[in-house]
Amino acid sequence: MDAMDVDAALFDVFGTMTDWRSSVSAELAVVGARTGLTADWAAVTDDWRRLYRPYLGKVVTGAMPWRSLDDLHRLMLDEVLPQHGLGALGEAERVDLVGAWHRLRAWPDAAPGLEILHYSRLITGTLSNGGVGLLARLTKHAGLRFDCVLSAELAKSYKTDPQVYLTAAGLLALEPHRILMVACHPDDLEAAARVGFRTAYIPRPLEWGPDAPPVKAPAGVDLVAEDVPALARVLGV
Amino acid sequence: MDAMDVDAALFDVFGTMTDWRSSVSAELAVVGARTGLTADWAAVTDDWRRLYRPYLGKVVTGAMPWRSLDDLHRLMLDEVLPQHGLGALGEAERVDLVGAWHRLRAWPDAAPGLEILHYSRLITGTLSNGGVGLLARLTKHAGLRFDCVLSAELAKSYKTDPQVYLTAAGLLALEPHRILMVACHPDDLEAAARVGFRTAYIPRPLEWGPDAPPVKAPAGVDLVAEDVPALARVLGV
Repeated sequence: MDAMDVDAALFDVFGTMTDWRSSVSAELAVVGARTGLTADWAAVTDDWRRLYRPYLGKVVTGAMPWRSLDDLHRLMLDEVLPQHGLGALGEAERVDLVGAWHRLRAWPDAAPGLEILHYSRLITGTLSNGGVGLLARLTKHAGLRFDCVLSAELAKSYKTDPQVYLTAAGLLALEPHRILMVACHPDDLEAAARVGFRTAYIPRPLEWGPDAPPVKAPAGVDLVAEDVPALARVLGV
Repeated sequence: MDAMDVDAALFDVFGTMTDWRSSVSAELAVVGARTGLTADWAAVTDDWRRLYRPYLGKVVTGAMPWRSLDDLHRLMLDEVLPQHGLGALGEAERVDLVGAWHRLRAWPDAAPGLEILHYSRLITGTLSNGGVGLLARLTKHAGLRFDCVLSAELAKSYKTDPQVYLTAAGLLALEPHRILMVACHPDDLEAAARVGFRTAYIPRPLEWGPDAPPVKAPAGVDLVAEDVPALARVLGV
């Protein structure tokens, strides 16, 4: 592809721009210390996150009516806690922990990379399963500067539903091929490509922690970059 | 009101944060110079803007199906140009001029005021009749940093339809009384207040140019501030 032949770059957020695992584990550990409960907090986090795709998938297939990601995170949490002997955790703690997903830390390259892109001619945005409010809070908390916050919520669905990508393109008044989807998840990029988006893969080998098996780079993407500043360089901005 | 008792501040954009009149007049003058046409460009701009409320009102009342503000700006422009002897202006120029609303200059205090608010705990956002794409381009062009871009487009209507304000509150997952609407237009603030928003009035005496009659400050707003940094001070951030 012509390196600069897009008008917008839309970014996945959970995993691609933020380190959900260490952030949520740390908040779980704080709640544990406060309540006197102990567990393998990284394992709780991983199990919580493993329910993500099954739950969102129910919404995409229509098996469950649309609910906000906060609501779904709560349902997943209620399912995971007893599996780790944490069923005694109270209502206030559960509400607090759902909010942990609003307070994720960015990967160190993400904020400086977005600043570079902000000062280019490209429109930058999120395209995340997080809701608009969650994303506004998260990007502000994490220091991630985007020109706009786009969410699967605006299509009342979740990725990888094609309507999520097409709704974003419609709101930006851009043809899909003028938009670059940036993610560390092959299924997100494949779904974006199916509706005509260009795609960039950024590997995040630490997404599932240092002991996770290596992720294979997806075939068929337009660009691969090691991090966000490298993406800006490849895009020629 | 308790000065800090809100979680988000949403801003009107055309007039409140940007000087549409001098910006659009300047672009009209450039197109005139390029095409050899002459007119009172400020008067053309004012007449173009005077059609704004009647056209948007047709959408709000249901007399016209929803169309993007770009499309409505084009219909208004096509109506105004012949009134000023500019009917000969071609298609490319008309498309360019509709885009002038994506390239408005900010009032000098707007960008520094938004930076102050960005580093507060308040979520900042647009709440404008401009579309999401228009607003992403405009805020980037004008250097206006918002935490999120919210638009009447997301309610498929226009201000002062209550659904516009309620849709924004729903997307932010906030009760209306936790949101401050900031505008220089009394009708915008009155509509926001009717659905429970708090309201802040910022006068923009130059919105319609130096010879326009003074605008009377609306009664019943929660705050009045002379500009955006003053608003930040009043909010205690």
